[in-house]
Amino acid sequence: MSDVHVERRDRLRERCSATGLDAALITHPANLRWLTGSAGGAGVGSDSAEGARALLVTPAAAVLAAAGLWSDADLGGGLTRVGTGPADDPAVVLAARCSGGSSLGVEEHDLTVARHRAVTAAASLRQIRDLGCAVEQLRTVKDEQELSLLRIAGEIADQALGELLESIVAGRTERHLAMELERRMIDHGADGAAFPVRVGTGDHSGRAAHASGDRRVEEGDFLTVALGACYRGYRVSATRTFVVGLGPADWQAELHRQVFSAQRAAREALAVGAGQDAADRAAHRVLDSLGHAFGHPYDTSGAGVGLEIGEEPHLGLQELGKLDNRVPVTVGVGVSLPGRGGVRIEDTLVVRPSEDGGPELLTITTKELLAL
Amino acid sequence: MSDVHVERRDRLRERCSATGLDAALITHPANLRWLTGSAGGAGVGSDSAEGARALLVTPAAAVLAAAGLWSDADLGGGLTRVGTGPADDPAVVLAARCSGGSSLGVEEHDLTVARHRAVTAAASLRQIRDLGCAVEQLRTVKDEQELSLLRIAGEIADQALGELLESIVAGRTERHLAMELERRMIDHGADGAAFPVRVGTGDHSGRAAHASGDRRVEEGDFLTVALGACYRGYRVSATRTFVVGLGPADWQAELHRQVFSAQRAAREALAVGAGQDAADRAAHRVLDSLGHAFGHPYDTSGAGVGLEIGEEPHLGLQELGKLDNRVPVTVGVGVSLPGRGGVRIEDTLVVRPSEDGGPELLTITTKELLAL
Repeated sequence: MSDVHVERRDRLRERCSATGLDAALITHPANLRWLTGSAGGAGVGSDSAEGARALLVTPAAAVLAAAGLWSDADLGGGLTRVGTGPADDPAVVLAARCSGGSSLGVEEHDLTVARHRAVTAAASLRQIRDLGCAVEQLRTVKDEQELSLLRIAGEIADQALGELLESIVAGRTERHLAMELERRMIDHGADGAAFPVRVGTGDHSGRAAHASGDRRVEEGDFLTVALGACYRGYRVSATRTFVVGLGPADWQAELHRQVFSAQRAAREALAVGAGQDAADRAAHRVLDSLGHAFGHPYDTSGAGVGLEIGEEPHLGLQELGKLDNRVPVTVGVGVSLPGRGGVRIEDTLVVRPSEDGGPELLTITTKELLAL
Repeated sequence: MSDVHVERRDRLRERCSATGLDAALITHPANLRWLTGSAGGAGVGSDSAEGARALLVTPAAAVLAAAGLWSDADLGGGLTRVGTGPADDPAVVLAARCSGGSSLGVEEHDLTVARHRAVTAAASLRQIRDLGCAVEQLRTVKDEQELSLLRIAGEIADQALGELLESIVAGRTERHLAMELERRMIDHGADGAAFPVRVGTGDHSGRAAHASGDRRVEEGDFLTVALGACYRGYRVSATRTFVVGLGPADWQAELHRQVFSAQRAAREALAVGAGQDAADRAAHRVLDSLGHAFGHPYDTSGAGVGLEIGEEPHLGLQELGKLDNRVPVTVGVGVSLPGRGGVRIEDTLVVRPSEDGGPELLTITTKELLAL
């Protein structure tokens, strides 16, 4: 709660200065946590109840406002805390504190139109501009402590998956399996699940987005499990696909081989200095090279992880940036055939220099098509 | 998934028509769920991953857009589904579908500035206005099925609390107790907790907002537990305060009596046609009448519950509206003394006519100051 958060706020000040902003008003929960070390009051599901906290960073000060009964108190390391009434918007309270003539950066991807209007009215004589995803971009490269937390989150997810492999799944509902995986992650020390666990069986398998429901697992099904642990706020994500019963049908084994190859190529494309489009291009090259043999629509996905799943940097064919050392990302490939289901495989890896062994895999459960 | 959702969308159309809007673009997750019957993909924590779904309601149609691989398909009852690419904003996709010349209402309390800008650009030749909390207001009066779900959610929360009363709490951490309560609610059939369970012991007790942490429960502590179950999307909230050990100290018993009296007065002030300020006024009258005997800062809180905690109608001294029959609200009063902790008591009740027995209490666990 000390130097690292002061340093992070200093880096934000530099970024503001470089873009002509005097001050920044931070409202996005993960950004608040990264800049202050404090998670706020709402637990794992969201880092902070919406609108409940805001941080004003000026050249000389950092003020954290939150609803509650705290008085003005200095927390050390230059962070002052201000309590606001339960019905106040802390962002509005802080906007009113900005000195005249300054330009204030706000997070337009976080503030609603209604809140932005109130903030603008409170800081009436100042120029309000978009800060954009400045803090998200500062957060992409993780320090050693963050990487340690991510490694632990990965281990917890792997432990829960491992226990699933040893249990009976046939006859159980997607929702029940999801809840059990979440419980196991908490038992192994997670704050909670990184996101609601997604279990899809039968024709629900292989999908990028499927909410665990009441469908029961049956013999012969593909079963896809997407899960992640949240550990001290840091989150990973992994997706694995299994078959239920004695073993896969030929079409299932073939589909799995193809998705596995594409996802492996995507993982191997991660490198310091590689483009944010590299992983997706590699996956597409593998699947497209199968020609008419692979006529199915598939999806690739990837983005940064840390205090959030799906944070900067975004991976994709249209992305123009480059990957840096110590940036953790997810890499996933999936295919779901209407009425039949399919395969999805996803990992979390940390981009590393090739001389250090290349990308560091955080989610090590086997990607083989195991029979459960 | 049929008539009730069609009727709800018709009521929204009437509201739009009355305010001169041709169409409404709905993005707020709980509103989407209420209007479509579908919870989206993200599980209990949030009804839908942010930005993942949007609904366009026009006089003749209702179109639900979501990232995924669905094709245009009519789901019955006039609801059409459109799949969007994983990187698209469904709200932007739908805005582009609005016919020229129409006026579109958007939820400015939900759309971020960045999304609003993209929606405006996509619907470029049309007038975009704030829909405000129109759907939240339509949602305040619950139908019989919604009340049934809330009753079950209340029973589940009561069951979990009841089991806590029979277990050992001394020596356990706030976080551990919170996780256990959440697990018990799921075991009793809840989708999950309505919000992260808040357990506060010692000087953390009595607070309106306290995140369960690593503090261990000790003999002599006040222990405050705020919890609620989410059942089929419907959520209740209850807060109870206990003492740990053989029995309360005199100051603890006195404080509890005072808070209990104030909260009871607040509950009893709920009536069809009473003001949204009535419950808070009643609580304040009781506490203020104690004069110098009650010099502590206290807080009262209350708002509607349903698909969300803290939805319309808001209760408070400054609120001008009136309470309707079949509106469920929370009513809470709390005091937390710095360094000592305190008492918080909160219930969920449904506003009912006096001839039907007055407010219906959904959270029936005793409010006495029990010793654990």
